[in-house]
Amino acid sequence: MTQYKIPVIPGDGIGPEIIAEGRKVIDAAGEKFGFDVDWVEYPHGADHYLETGELISEDSLKELSGYKGIYLGSIGDDRIAPGVLEKGILLAARFYFDQYINLRPIKLLDGVWCPIKDKTPADIDFTVVRENTEDFYIGIGGRAKSGASKDLLEVHRTLYNAKFGLDIETDSEEIGYQIGMISKEGTQRVINYAFDLAEKSKKHVSSVDKANVLSDIYGFWREEFNSVAAKHPDVKTDFNYVDAMTMWFVKNPEWFDVVVTPNMFGDIITDLGAMVQGGLGLAPGGNINPEGTSMFEPIHGSAPKYKGQNKVNPIATIWAGAMLIEQMGEKEAADAIVSAIETNIREAKVQTYDMGGSAGTSDVGDDIARIVLGK
Amino acid sequence: MTQYKIPVIPGDGIGPEIIAEGRKVIDAAGEKFGFDVDWVEYPHGADHYLETGELISEDSLKELSGYKGIYLGSIGDDRIAPGVLEKGILLAARFYFDQYINLRPIKLLDGVWCPIKDKTPADIDFTVVRENTEDFYIGIGGRAKSGASKDLLEVHRTLYNAKFGLDIETDSEEIGYQIGMISKEGTQRVINYAFDLAEKSKKHVSSVDKANVLSDIYGFWREEFNSVAAKHPDVKTDFNYVDAMTMWFVKNPEWFDVVVTPNMFGDIITDLGAMVQGGLGLAPGGNINPEGTSMFEPIHGSAPKYKGQNKVNPIATIWAGAMLIEQMGEKEAADAIVSAIETNIREAKVQTYDMGGSAGTSDVGDDIARIVLGK
Ligand SMILES: CC(C)[C@H](C(=O)O)[C@@H](O)C(=O)O
Ligand SMILES: CC(C)[C@H](C(=O)O)[C@@H](O)C(=O)O
Repeated sequence: MTQYKIPVIPGDGIGPEIIAEGRKVIDAAGEKFGFDVDWVEYPHGADHYLETGELISEDSLKELSGYKGIYLGSIGDDRIAPGVLEKGILLAARFYFDQYINLRPIKLLDGVWCPIKDKTPADIDFTVVRENTEDFYIGIGGRAKSGASKDLLEVHRTLYNAKFGLDIETDSEEIGYQIGMISKEGTQRVINYAFDLAEKSKKHVSSVDKANVLSDIYGFWREEFNSVAAKHPDVKTDFNYVDAMTMWFVKNPEWFDVVVTPNMFGDIITDLGAMVQGGLGLAPGGNINPEGTSMFEPIHGSAPKYKGQNKVNPIATIWAGAMLIEQMGEKEAADAIVSAIETNIREAKVQTYDMGGSAGTSDVGDDIARIVLGK
Repeated sequence: MTQYKIPVIPGDGIGPEIIAEGRKVIDAAGEKFGFDVDWVEYPHGADHYLETGELISEDSLKELSGYKGIYLGSIGDDRIAPGVLEKGILLAARFYFDQYINLRPIKLLDGVWCPIKDKTPADIDFTVVRENTEDFYIGIGGRAKSGASKDLLEVHRTLYNAKFGLDIETDSEEIGYQIGMISKEGTQRVINYAFDLAEKSKKHVSSVDKANVLSDIYGFWREEFNSVAAKHPDVKTDFNYVDAMTMWFVKNPEWFDVVVTPNMFGDIITDLGAMVQGGLGLAPGGNINPEGTSMFEPIHGSAPKYKGQNKVNPIATIWAGAMLIEQMGEKEAADAIVSAIETNIREAKVQTYDMGGSAGTSDVGDDIARIVLGK
């Protein structure tokens, strides 16, 4: 029997509960398809941070880099300032493992209530490929009034004033600023990935940017997009401004096959995508480094107010688990899990509150595991 | 009779057609409420640029600054590279006149088809106050491999590599970068405006940011928000990440009263807001400088493929016209125009294709003018 060792970071809030169901279903799939998983638990998250002051150590990251896939619950806790855990654990891992693809299927499963009128599963079935290591996520920024950043204040006011002969006061002012950057390599590799995916799908890649305003960074993105597109003459392409994209996701989701997007816009439109596919409880994501260590998670947060209540929907996490074992090479088992999720939803007997049911988190895990086992 | 002189920039594509209807309705309101408008036309837009090479000159801007309100159709043309007209005319005007408020009502009118299930006009009725002069709209950015920006490449790679001892090649690399900035004054004035609006409304202000990742710029935003909020202890407040906000706009629009947002996120969420309120054909916006020159426009673009066809919906532009004359002090006339739009929609006899009808742009203008006149 094939043996896998898979590290798991249950994380904060509802993380441990949903991860327990994900493991249960993967274990069931192992029983059915002939593999066995040795789960290696990692304690990282809010409690660990509050107890030890450690977010995630370089030693832990080095150790984790020996694996092909990590299973992640959710990170985030109200006791800690915004960004500390997210940047210190989640983004740290994405960057450290150079997981340059954030793969987010937007698929309305049969039987799921869609908040958009007149849309069926045939209309909502595409994939967002989000760049995952660059853009405005690089964490460079600051305040003016001190050292180097004073220069930026000057640049700002000089440009702003010089353009039309204004004379806005700069003296007592303070600013906050942030820098985003994308590299040639970083942009090309994610766009290449998107085109490869489209070649195996409906041969259509839609790019997202805001090149009409953030022209420096996204003008560069468009050039790289065009240079990759030139190598795929059979693939249809289009450019979309991110603002308009939020409309198309609601109005014409059937237009899309593969959507490729810079990091920050990808963050925004995939939450909307999750809503369109029936809610955050159903939306999985994969942080992928095709040659290295990938990491799979539900795209929702840690929902602290539901912690320990056996209440929330584990399907996003179970689906992320399917993506995880597909990455390990267990395609058949992964398909069986997705198909079991679909059966559970179609039967509509064991569902959590967000889907109109009254079952608990663990009941849904049990039910999907049962279906995987063919019982 | 009160006399107003109002500059109008019909602009590109469908701009002239929709502006003609807006003028028609304002003229009718003048007849009814006792004022007369002398319209002063400006030629700026794609044709003017292609003929003369001029986007908008400092002379034109100086001249326009003598007025309280400008009426704008739409700017944008496929013959010209993305950003040239938008930055050279639309953003130039917003910045030159320091129109620091972009006011966008999100209101589902009675009788309008909403693409979201189970939402009624009572659920979708709030206002987005978008900052309009700073953030990532300041136009500062560039490419690496030359002069100063080379330093940014170093900063990027140094941080990225140093954090976990990586050693990513930097030599042959090229990057595109963009800088966003918000100032203390710029942030406070828009947040003040939002709170003043909420004091006259349902006393609830929701802030939008991404302080967990773009912590420098939006941590600063949050501080300013808190300092303004402290002066309004009776107003309820909350912070929302922009990604989550796209979900709430679909799932719980009824939560909101006044939403205040940095420029770029405001751009994104108001397009989604327009969709939620029934489509771009119905969404108006005002670029406001309360002490200076304001500018009112539909938030949709120039839709070149419909140009000259008397086909598109003029309601967004007519509604923007109501905001314009309200700004001039004609509150009663403005209310009459909005109410006439509501009557036109409720009667559902004279509607453009996007609302399921077969009337032309000018028929809708005629009908709303008729209702304003009480005929
Ligand atoms: C928690 C946060 C840092 C993260 C992000 O912004 O990427 C989340 O919103 C996501 O989409 O995975
Ligand atoms: C045309 C474009 C520059 C503009 C913007 O980004 O502000 C538009 O999308 C808007 O929302 O008014």
